Amino acid sequence: MAAETKTAGTKTGSGIAMRGAGYYSAHTTGAKTVIDAATELVLEAGRDIKLDNPETAFGIADYGCADGGTSIDLHRAVIADIRRREPGRPISLTYTDLPGNDFSALFKRLQGQLPMDPIGLSNFDRLFPMASGTSFYRQIVPSGTLAVGFSATAMHWMSTLPSRITGHVHSVGAKGAEYDAFRAQSLKDWETILLHRAAELRPGGWLVMANFCVDEQGHYLGHTGGVCMFDQYERHWRGLFETGAITRTEYDRATFQQHYRTPEECAAPFRDPNSAVSRAGLELVRSFTRVTPCPYATAFQRDSDPAGFAKSYIPTLRSWSESTFFGALDPARPLDERQSLIDRYYDSYEADVAARPEGHGMDYVHCFMQIRKRRDA
Amino acid sequence: MAAETKTAGTKTGSGIAMRGAGYYSAHTTGAKTVIDAATELVLEAGRDIKLDNPETAFGIADYGCADGGTSIDLHRAVIADIRRREPGRPISLTYTDLPGNDFSALFKRLQGQLPMDPIGLSNFDRLFPMASGTSFYRQIVPSGTLAVGFSATAMHWMSTLPSRITGHVHSVGAKGAEYDAFRAQSLKDWETILLHRAAELRPGGWLVMANFCVDEQGHYLGHTGGVCMFDQYERHWRGLFETGAITRTEYDRATFQQHYRTPEECAAPFRDPNSAVSRAGLELVRSFTRVTPCPYATAFQRDSDPAGFAKSYIPTLRSWSESTFFGALDPARPLDERQSLIDRYYDSYEADVAARPEGHGMDYVHCFMQIRKRRDA
Repeated sequence: MAAETKTAGTKTGSGIAMRGAGYYSAHTTGAKTVIDAATELVLEAGRDIKLDNPETAFGIADYGCADGGTSIDLHRAVIADIRRREPGRPISLTYTDLPGNDFSALFKRLQGQLPMDPIGLSNFDRLFPMASGTSFYRQIVPSGTLAVGFSATAMHWMSTLPSRITGHVHSVGAKGAEYDAFRAQSLKDWETILLHRAAELRPGGWLVMANFCVDEQGHYLGHTGGVCMFDQYERHWRGLFETGAITRTEYDRATFQQHYRTPEECAAPFRDPNSAVSRAGLELVRSFTRVTPCPYATAFQRDSDPAGFAKSYIPTLRSWSESTFFGALDPARPLDERQSLIDRYYDSYEADVAARPEGHGMDYVHCFMQIRKRRDA
Repeated sequence: MAAETKTAGTKTGSGIAMRGAGYYSAHTTGAKTVIDAATELVLEAGRDIKLDNPETAFGIADYGCADGGTSIDLHRAVIADIRRREPGRPISLTYTDLPGNDFSALFKRLQGQLPMDPIGLSNFDRLFPMASGTSFYRQIVPSGTLAVGFSATAMHWMSTLPSRITGHVHSVGAKGAEYDAFRAQSLKDWETILLHRAAELRPGGWLVMANFCVDEQGHYLGHTGGVCMFDQYERHWRGLFETGAITRTEYDRATFQQHYRTPEECAAPFRDPNSAVSRAGLELVRSFTRVTPCPYATAFQRDSDPAGFAKSYIPTLRSWSESTFFGALDPARPLDERQSLIDRYYDSYEADVAARPEGHGMDYVHCFMQIRKRRDA
């Protein structure tokens, strides 16, 4: 994939972009582990769906799919499970992400055209895969057509950046009014997400999500007791500024358009029977948090190879963070220069991990949820 | 677009690919003229659709959409027309092309994110645009969900390359058994296309197509009385071989995976009430051929600027032919070398047009068809 990755590069613009050409899935084995853990919840949801008309397609959506690599095993399992019950049931599978996503990599994967997976989903007939470049902050499929919606590790991306953060790059390091602005926008975003999904779901349909969260222990992605990953992001970015490599404005501009809600915040709209979400017919069936250990840190504990750890660990961080830092750089800089700065940034982070590896790691902290739309809704 | 086009380059692999990042639409004003001419046929088809349930989406498909630029005005007109009759009607619009298509350019265009069109289709609510990377040689949307299918300038691409062509690059220059192989495959492909569309259409649904053809006068794309474009393609490619720039194998391998059917051949499956197509419920309502003059040759007649003509004319040829010639080159050659050879090829064609401009031109020759699925099918 290396050569392809180079030319595909990073999509910029919104600052929300995964690296293309399969780079995302190749470097996010942890994200796949999370999805594997959600599979049983999706199977359970699928088994609860009753469609009267045999011609009606069983509608599945995968929100924030990237290149589709992390969820393809889940979809294989779900489709096979539906077909065991109803061999002839048509199934529509709608993958969604932002317009800049690498949809070609997705389609090639589904059709078994990528070397690492020569089958994809091509062995299922009457399966109709689609892609939508519509944000999950809007309704994506027609009302009442979705049986099961699924989303993993996507809905921490906010609809808008509510504030810059003084001295930090992520809302986990925000304070006071800046923190409040992130939280308020994130709660509003959550309601928007749920209301659009409520419209899309057919009565009796399900939504299964595994979203990043701040859990009951105050843990969150890359912050589960050891080194705080987001503090490191900030420290190395500040390093570029302090050595004069980037400007003050560029330093300030690097802000993840993300916020991690607590399980409590996620559950709130369901607790209030008069909330818009409850009135739209959605009920929270199950919710729990789960820490998925960083596979690279786990391997380091076993192998005690600091340089190897750093070399494998940084690409998983880079896969989803690069666009934020790249987008913070002055577009007036030549592209080559911006790419060099970004390389230098991650090189600095990698050298630091290689030199002092203990405590680094990106444990995933998720809130898993099963949500159902009432049959009478 | 220039910078973006450079990095996006040409998709290769199948040898069927349009240049990405908007290059295709920017250099195919003739293709847009054809679609504009088909708009009335699509509006007429749309007005014939009756959907009982107000929640049922009016399903539209656009087969072989490329980056969506040539057909967006048609879809604007069709959607506006539906909404005049039924303001609340949900509409699903499925764009299809091969996996390597630039779907990001398509989605950006639809969402008004391209500089040349800041609106796209973003001003329509309850419109659900989708993309499918599934070939039109397979069923793309669930059975009975499509109200109107549309396709322009796409279905001359064959499902497979049936033969090499001795001494030529296109089946219009094939003879004997080689020609027969192209024709037979193309007729089989046509039936496959129609049967899949028959499954997708709801009873009473319509298919409107404008396909390249060989018309009643024996005219076809780039061959309407002046210089035959495909002979020029062959001549300049042979030039590369004769000067030793490419090998015999590379010369032989350049073969368009295309065939142009006659209107008679297109109509044949409908004439036979026992054909699979007729039994699937499809009826040919209207069919006619139309020559769309090459806009670049027309401008040359007005401006008498041979160099300017050549410079504007060659990119429209290049937009859809480059992948065939690029794919014929030995992949063992470094990428840069292959790109240089391709540049040299089109430079040679351009220099020839600039030196002897008379008679050059790519008039489009289409067979327009309106096809209906019987209400009782």
